[in-house]
Amino acid sequence: MEKCSEPAATTAESRPGRDRAGELPGGLVVRKYGGSSLATPDRVRNVAGALAALAAEGRRVVVVVSAMGDTTDELVALAGEFADRPEARELDQLMATGEQASAALLALAVNQLGVRAGSLSGDQAGIVVGGRPGAGVIERIDAHRIFERLRHWRVVVVAGFQGRNRDGELLTLGRGGSDTTAVALAAALGSTDCEICTDVAGVHTADPRVVPGSRRLDTVPYDVMTELAGRGAKVLHPRSVALAARHEVRVRVLHSMWPVDGTTVAEEPLEAGHRVVGIAHERDVRLVSLTLTGARAARCAPALAKLVEHGLNPDVLTWRDRHEVRFTVRGQAPLDVLDEVARELDAKWVVEDDLGAVSVVGVGLFDHPGYLAGMLRAVGALGVAVAALATSPSRFTAVLPVDLLDAAVCALHETFGLGAGR
Amino acid sequence: MEKCSEPAATTAESRPGRDRAGELPGGLVVRKYGGSSLATPDRVRNVAGALAALAAEGRRVVVVVSAMGDTTDELVALAGEFADRPEARELDQLMATGEQASAALLALAVNQLGVRAGSLSGDQAGIVVGGRPGAGVIERIDAHRIFERLRHWRVVVVAGFQGRNRDGELLTLGRGGSDTTAVALAAALGSTDCEICTDVAGVHTADPRVVPGSRRLDTVPYDVMTELAGRGAKVLHPRSVALAARHEVRVRVLHSMWPVDGTTVAEEPLEAGHRVVGIAHERDVRLVSLTLTGARAARCAPALAKLVEHGLNPDVLTWRDRHEVRFTVRGQAPLDVLDEVARELDAKWVVEDDLGAVSVVGVGLFDHPGYLAGMLRAVGALGVAVAALATSPSRFTAVLPVDLLDAAVCALHETFGLGAGR
Repeated sequence: MEKCSEPAATTAESRPGRDRAGELPGGLVVRKYGGSSLATPDRVRNVAGALAALAAEGRRVVVVVSAMGDTTDELVALAGEFADRPEARELDQLMATGEQASAALLALAVNQLGVRAGSLSGDQAGIVVGGRPGAGVIERIDAHRIFERLRHWRVVVVAGFQGRNRDGELLTLGRGGSDTTAVALAAALGSTDCEICTDVAGVHTADPRVVPGSRRLDTVPYDVMTELAGRGAKVLHPRSVALAARHEVRVRVLHSMWPVDGTTVAEEPLEAGHRVVGIAHERDVRLVSLTLTGARAARCAPALAKLVEHGLNPDVLTWRDRHEVRFTVRGQAPLDVLDEVARELDAKWVVEDDLGAVSVVGVGLFDHPGYLAGMLRAVGALGVAVAALATSPSRFTAVLPVDLLDAAVCALHETFGLGAGR
Repeated sequence: MEKCSEPAATTAESRPGRDRAGELPGGLVVRKYGGSSLATPDRVRNVAGALAALAAEGRRVVVVVSAMGDTTDELVALAGEFADRPEARELDQLMATGEQASAALLALAVNQLGVRAGSLSGDQAGIVVGGRPGAGVIERIDAHRIFERLRHWRVVVVAGFQGRNRDGELLTLGRGGSDTTAVALAAALGSTDCEICTDVAGVHTADPRVVPGSRRLDTVPYDVMTELAGRGAKVLHPRSVALAARHEVRVRVLHSMWPVDGTTVAEEPLEAGHRVVGIAHERDVRLVSLTLTGARAARCAPALAKLVEHGLNPDVLTWRDRHEVRFTVRGQAPLDVLDEVARELDAKWVVEDDLGAVSVVGVGLFDHPGYLAGMLRAVGALGVAVAALATSPSRFTAVLPVDLLDAAVCALHETFGLGAGR
């Protein structure tokens, strides 16, 4: 599970928003555009046109933007020119400029169409953030800041992914932070809907680049979406889904150029039965085995706690006995932290590379024994050696060699009848 | 005269600074680096090395930066992609990111050398600005913000050219704003000195690219520097000079790579006699002639007032009679405003292009009749038709065809014996 402690938008300061969004003549739209939707001047103009059309219908728009195209990666690379390990604080100061610039440019493009628009940094938008640099968590949004602007502007463009803490420091929210900003704003402004415009037409039963026959889902419940997003479906950030669930904001995932249909993430009926909803996958997974020896052999748990304190997120975790624990990590394994733990606790570790993870995600998966059996049979038929397996009522995850990952995704999509012909 | 209403750093909030700078162990250096000094990663690293060297001497450093290289022009061009006439407010939001990014990158580069550094936006640095977007004026600096940082950081990097107004709006200070930021910070922090590091080795008797035999000046009085800067010497912004004079901050203009010698701008003795200090020049000057006809022929002054209200700065202004006024403008003439005034006041206007202005700048120029005579003779000897002439005790300015401008600068430099052989 992704950590999500955003209690945003529920405090006294933001509550008035919930009353006031409904009072805006024509209603309020809260929408987010990702970096790929703003990657070229033409796309920015397309987005401006869409916003102007909403304004022409009499609606007010609050739009959250990411940095244009590859700007964030470029800024990180630029920082790398000057520092081997850039301080998180300065990276935040630097990276926030990407979203601020795209917000100003989009506001210009909307104004050019004769619709009054203005941009705000996260700080100017009243977004108060706690936590550490690079890992900020929205604590509160002073919604009156945006309502004040909406008296003069039809379209308020907010730089995503950032806010200001109580000491006046700028903090960014980490990857996916713009989704979280948009949902938090919807909650704080009292909107029941939030539109996430991206480069796909919605949430699919599997990644369409891997499974051409995958199907767009009309509706996905919050908890299933949390699992899909947490297991590698990049369409929506897991933190934003948890935030939406807590504040009952319906999230619509739409294509930024053809914003019809899409997928709605919303509340599931209390008794929803059991079903498989989709297949998610992740590449770039590593499996760590940590073995303790000697007198300290009973200290697997403290060793793991120490790793977590160093920012490591152990996933698909299995505990062979008191001496050995295995878990997956995303991306690079933190070798320096592992070394430190090994030195301190008399442990050995091994890292397996070139792995991927495939997940069957759905509702009440344990309620139907055929689901787990079906998954194991499908993977077995490919001759795949499963390196690790984790199960929960809402997902089964298998870790396997990355070169067989796509085949496994296709096989599982087929096995559970998720294609268009269903 | 440049308009300069920065009353910065004299209010109660900033006064404590004047007491506290002296209390910092090792002392405080306030320094500014322009965009060309930060144009490449190597130059940024050079600057970081210079700052680390100051820190190694035990000093604390507050350094103001411009945007790297051509960033500001690139951002303006990017805005032009989206809007024919970008709103000043959004341009401010956009342009401020240039300085913020270079501040963060320089802080990273200094940290990399093992010296603790951090960056601040103008807002975070406590710079309170009044005025309009794109034309902000520093009202006040809450100096304690920077003193707090100096308890932890050896080097505080401040994004120049920007601040926050009382409504929380970001405003930029207009061209040359980073010079003004640096001088205002020096005053607010109680430093008696401010170093402006740029791409020239100081203030010269004339632009060395035009007059190879020009000489670096060791000391220039504030009022002479104001005239030199206002008449085209780009080394220091006129507003920053006026601010330095008011707050008795000695400004040193230094080359960013070879920061030896340079030029000090400081107080002149009360009785300073008379002398020519340097020759300044400007290209891209236009001469406007405005003639009123008919019943409203006596309304030259209101017409001019209207032009000023539209942001036009009439310079080298001559008043032939009640019906005709002539003046120069820098850069493009505001044809739309002229059209509007002409329509409203029954006037005609003519604009002469391809002109330049050369100025003899000094102290007590009227106290020596030879100065004006010498200027007129030198220009006359070149066969130059002077289109307009303005005189004051500290400068004589002649407007002439731009293709003869360099020759006029050289001739005047020679006439007044300003070369190295003096």
